[in-house]
Amino acid sequence: MKIAVIGCGYWGPNLVRNFVQSNKVRELICCDLDQKRLDRMKNLYPSVNVLSDYKELLKVPDLDAVVIATPVKTHHPIAKEFLEQGKHVFIEKPLTHSYDTALELVKLAEEKKKVLMVGHTFEYTAAVNKIKDIVENGELGKILYVSCTRVNLGLFQPDINVVWDLAPHDISIIMYVLREYPVSVNSQGKAHFKPGIEDVATTTLNFKNGIVAFVHNSWLDPNKIRRTTIVGTKRMLVYDDVEPQEKIKIYDKGVEVPPYYDTYAEFQFSYRYGDIHSPRIDDYEPLKRESEHFLTCIQKGLCPLSDGYSGLRVVSVLEAASKSLKQNGKAVSIKGLKILAKKFRNNGNGFLMTNGWR
Amino acid sequence: MKIAVIGCGYWGPNLVRNFVQSNKVRELICCDLDQKRLDRMKNLYPSVNVLSDYKELLKVPDLDAVVIATPVKTHHPIAKEFLEQGKHVFIEKPLTHSYDTALELVKLAEEKKKVLMVGHTFEYTAAVNKIKDIVENGELGKILYVSCTRVNLGLFQPDINVVWDLAPHDISIIMYVLREYPVSVNSQGKAHFKPGIEDVATTTLNFKNGIVAFVHNSWLDPNKIRRTTIVGTKRMLVYDDVEPQEKIKIYDKGVEVPPYYDTYAEFQFSYRYGDIHSPRIDDYEPLKRESEHFLTCIQKGLCPLSDGYSGLRVVSVLEAASKSLKQNGKAVSIKGLKILAKKFRNNGNGFLMTNGWR
Amino acid sequence: MKIAVIGCGYWGPNLVRNFVQSNKVRELICCDLDQKRLDRMKNLYPSVNVLSDYKELLKVPDLDAVVIATPVKTHHPIAKEFLEQGKHVFIEKPLTHSYDTALELVKLAEEKKKVLMVGHTFEYTAAVNKIKDIVENGELGKILYVSCTRVNLGLFQPDINVVWDLAPHDISIIMYVLREYPVSVNSQGKAHFKPGIEDVATTTLNFKNGIVAFVHNSWLDPNKIRRTTIVGTKRMLVYDDVEPQEKIKIYDKGVEVPPYYDTYAEFQFSYRYGDIHSPRIDDYEPLKRESEHFLTCIQKGLCPLSDGYSGLRVVSVLEAASKSLKQNGKAVSIKGLKILAKKFRNNGNGFLMTNGWR
Amino acid sequence: MKIAVIGCGYWGPNLVRNFVQSNKVRELICCDLDQKRLDRMKNLYPSVNVLSDYKELLKVPDLDAVVIATPVKTHHPIAKEFLEQGKHVFIEKPLTHSYDTALELVKLAEEKKKVLMVGHTFEYTAAVNKIKDIVENGELGKILYVSCTRVNLGLFQPDINVVWDLAPHDISIIMYVLREYPVSVNSQGKAHFKPGIEDVATTTLNFKNGIVAFVHNSWLDPNKIRRTTIVGTKRMLVYDDVEPQEKIKIYDKGVEVPPYYDTYAEFQFSYRYGDIHSPRIDDYEPLKRESEHFLTCIQKGLCPLSDGYSGLRVVSVLEAASKSLKQNGKAVSIKGLKILAKKFRNNGNGFLMTNGWR
Repeated sequence: MKIAVIGCGYWGPNLVRNFVQSNKVRELICCDLDQKRLDRMKNLYPSVNVLSDYKELLKVPDLDAVVIATPVKTHHPIAKEFLEQGKHVFIEKPLTHSYDTALELVKLAEEKKKVLMVGHTFEYTAAVNKIKDIVENGELGKILYVSCTRVNLGLFQPDINVVWDLAPHDISIIMYVLREYPVSVNSQGKAHFKPGIEDVATTTLNFKNGIVAFVHNSWLDPNKIRRTTIVGTKRMLVYDDVEPQEKIKIYDKGVEVPPYYDTYAEFQFSYRYGDIHSPRIDDYEPLKRESEHFLTCIQKGLCPLSDGYSGLRVVSVLEAASKSLKQNGKAVSIKGLKILAKKFRNNGNGFLMTNGWR
Repeated sequence: MKIAVIGCGYWGPNLVRNFVQSNKVRELICCDLDQKRLDRMKNLYPSVNVLSDYKELLKVPDLDAVVIATPVKTHHPIAKEFLEQGKHVFIEKPLTHSYDTALELVKLAEEKKKVLMVGHTFEYTAAVNKIKDIVENGELGKILYVSCTRVNLGLFQPDINVVWDLAPHDISIIMYVLREYPVSVNSQGKAHFKPGIEDVATTTLNFKNGIVAFVHNSWLDPNKIRRTTIVGTKRMLVYDDVEPQEKIKIYDKGVEVPPYYDTYAEFQFSYRYGDIHSPRIDDYEPLKRESEHFLTCIQKGLCPLSDGYSGLRVVSVLEAASKSLKQNGKAVSIKGLKILAKKFRNNGNGFLMTNGWR
Repeated sequence: MKIAVIGCGYWGPNLVRNFVQSNKVRELICCDLDQKRLDRMKNLYPSVNVLSDYKELLKVPDLDAVVIATPVKTHHPIAKEFLEQGKHVFIEKPLTHSYDTALELVKLAEEKKKVLMVGHTFEYTAAVNKIKDIVENGELGKILYVSCTRVNLGLFQPDINVVWDLAPHDISIIMYVLREYPVSVNSQGKAHFKPGIEDVATTTLNFKNGIVAFVHNSWLDPNKIRRTTIVGTKRMLVYDDVEPQEKIKIYDKGVEVPPYYDTYAEFQFSYRYGDIHSPRIDDYEPLKRESEHFLTCIQKGLCPLSDGYSGLRVVSVLEAASKSLKQNGKAVSIKGLKILAKKFRNNGNGFLMTNGWR
Repeated sequence: MKIAVIGCGYWGPNLVRNFVQSNKVRELICCDLDQKRLDRMKNLYPSVNVLSDYKELLKVPDLDAVVIATPVKTHHPIAKEFLEQGKHVFIEKPLTHSYDTALELVKLAEEKKKVLMVGHTFEYTAAVNKIKDIVENGELGKILYVSCTRVNLGLFQPDINVVWDLAPHDISIIMYVLREYPVSVNSQGKAHFKPGIEDVATTTLNFKNGIVAFVHNSWLDPNKIRRTTIVGTKRMLVYDDVEPQEKIKIYDKGVEVPPYYDTYAEFQFSYRYGDIHSPRIDDYEPLKRESEHFLTCIQKGLCPLSDGYSGLRVVSVLEAASKSLKQNGKAVSIKGLKILAKKFRNNGNGFLMTNGWR
């Protein structure tokens, strides 16, 4: 296949490396407005071709797909042009900067019967897939709540706030593992350094089935924390992505509620403290699995695991969070619940890809 | 002095131990409805006297003060009876279960010229006082935000939710260290086990000067976490109360903003990563310092560090959080801002006690 | 029973507390040359009687047993006097300061048919007994080696070096868990502050069956470390006594050796990296279990778990270590191997006590 | 310069990468008996040339230097051939497999006036150089002892034991930081899997000035530990190379000895517990600095920081350790103390390179 990567700044080079090393890729074109970045790519991978203006790409013959890793607000216009031309499109997370633009791309991809995939990288990690298995096997019992902390010092984004930058990971992990999407969102935060660009925020996702998820994000924390706690009725799980050896710990702890009890009598819950178990997680590069998955979906006409609807769902939550931030943290309903719901049921048959549309 | 401790259940015995060991206390009376608890106290401290009904205490001659460690909803009626009789009163946190009842006790204590103190224990720890010094010395620069996590498995309270149980520590620490109180509060949470009693919640405090504080509390977390992060413009501080040796770490990290910059130009912040410093914290029992402080305030006619107004401020925040929880997390204004403000300025001359009213 | 505790300095008060609280003890006498310590004991436990000179104890009628927590070099003369009088004797670890004096006490106790017990406290902890179970169940496979680190800043002992102070814990744990004793010992160390009193040392125990144990002890380490690693052919275990929640971790890791292989061919071992499991450990005070065990052995005429022979074995290793330290670390054989061997087989029927001699 | 890397197995590719990226290198030749490894190198770095037999290299014209990363026992014969031909030589640690062969290379390099450098990588890390500064500035006071633990699961070496594999790092760090070399060595260990190849060992280095260093190495530990503790009279330092953020911690702790005291009186030391400080360590790849240093030394005719004598010193300690292992751990004197001493004084002017011999 002939593939182009548009945007070779911060994240792009990782995508370039993975696509260059794939034996499914015959030719790779790197595209960036900054000549220095193109030189850097050429230097690292002498086989790639380079182009400064992505408009030129539209004229390149036999191009199969484009991979977009540009600033968020440019995702939609660029992707639209290529989808309209009948190219397959991979977009870094978040899919676009608004629900409406995301939906437009989703519709366009369906109409053109092209693969539209979003880079929710964590859905391709061994740890998150292990957690998904544990949750689906019922080891944790009924899930009660999820709590995520994803903080560190930097990196300020020029055009999006900390929720749009960091929370897509948490939101996509939660929706992937729980196979549920929230119905409303609260978010409270503050922009300390750049007006209108919140650099710290706490977002609460409220799910229809009563599950609640708390997501704390910051660009201003002295420690790098990537921690997700999933509390179930039977067991509790902590996923610490910074921990090298024990990324997942399952705590055999819980609250024991007597089967029935006199509500007027004294309140009597007991606590269970059991063993802690840390399953072995295989090491592989999730980005490699993600990029291969995109190429496989193109070849076989499949719907990707993290398809346009998956991207749309995350954008819908982010848009609601932004609205809540502007309204002092009050609950804001998720847009497009019906669309999200229908496709969610169709899509997510676990890790296996669903059949395509062809 | 002759002192009575009412309520010898979960926390009461710690208060009994500290008051028994004080050389300022001549006689101590333990009061509890449960004879077994009284027997236990008598067994541990043979010199104490015991009483089952606190109403009997009202008839005891020469009683100087009462210490109340009963369920939260009984704080107000019990305290009121003793204040009306002209006794000094110490109440475990939170002061009472509502703003109005807390204010009534505060007014009554002023009128009767008696000491009213609330058990905000953390204000008496070496770590929190060290942090207060660091913040006041300007080592952290201007404070931007505070983030607190106080979670563990259990202990469910019968009559109050997790915010009323755990957040008083966080809220009192924040207000003590910052010498500011919030103007509005958001809180999102969920009651999984007992209807109406939230067992997990995230609360956001919004301060007039733009500081924001995030407080996450849970009775359902597999790990015991007590972590407070204070982010300033110059440095960042993490207080981890579970850590035995390095409770406080000061990170010489920050965001460097150029003095002025063209907003149309590319966004250029830089980051500073420097040394980490962990000051030595002296070890002592804060409860001992707290109980001695109460006795000293009685003897010298002083206003305690954690006086009734301090308790009122915390209750005011808790009440707003409860309202927010019932209104899907929307921002709720703090009640009684004027009263809180006036007294706040008068009171808190650092750690030294202000002069009394006599 | 009527019991006396001789030596109420550093460790003695813990023994006093546990014996005072036992319902098997009718009368407790505290004995110390320092009147201030006696006053302190009397103050904490008004029911105890006090005596300054232990010689006076020899005249006290109906005394059942003595508990000796004095400086190490006085263990032997004091214990000897009471054993000769037909009293049961408990001695803090190490049993005595030399093999010969330890053996003399052991023989004397046998002759007088009295209980002689040594305070190897760790043999009474839940963690060490859990480890013993795991090893005996074969979960770790054949044990290859043990590595222990027990270091911290202070506490210098006036009359014994760091090996005699800290290593008795490691040595007694190793021998208790493995049910083996070493045949020779190397020890290298240094006395930095007090001539002849080593403050840091590394001791190697060589067992007949090929197991080796490494023990590192220091009074000069900035961190408190209590860590024991047990490496088996099937699994590996780490016991970290400082860790509050995960004291024991079992690593399903190992080296896979092909069943047979051409030694001339390339060396091909593979590694297994599996799950990590941390079993729940019950919390109780080991000293309480230890003191009750002493009283039970007296009542029922049983041989204690940590009997005189157990103490003798540890002393024999310590004496060899001291010799090795004086001989630049060369291997020194353990004294009295035949005596140790015979009794070792008789005694240790797991955690259950063996029948006594009466 | 025209450089060849001999041995592209485990460590070689890292050397290839660094030399390829250096602008001082005009042509790089990779040499390995395994064609698959050569293909891999060619694939990663299309500009390199490849050769299977190193003997062919001897015929290559204009070759400036060779970098040897082959099994340890082949270091000496290969290096000798190239030194005799007048090539500069870099050898991975340890320099050779015996004192005599190492000394032969050192003499040969001196005679031929060629650079002989050994890959003591840690001497090029920011952390170790920071520690060297701290020690030389006297911040720790007089150094009392050093304790190192370097353990993990695997990697078994076919021809050398765990001391020769892992301890060179510890030994070179200790000698680099202290600027002292030991006079005798004890080592105790065990070969569990391959006869004669110890897989766990504890080695004690005894220095003339009374400093002692303990080094524990294992290929059979479930955890990866790289920890060095340096205890001084004024402060203590812990270097934990596995820790991402706080690699070095300086503890303001110590023992306070009264200036003079009556030795008959009670032993009275006191302890100081102060702040903990973790200096910021810059991040760079030490191997890059090491490889550049080799090239600079060639260009400018300088003696490298880790020159042949440095390699000889480490080999001398390793050889003594091997002898001690075969003699049940008894102390073995270091060979060639006079040679090591003379050159040690000449060489190590801190981090700056000394002038060359040209």
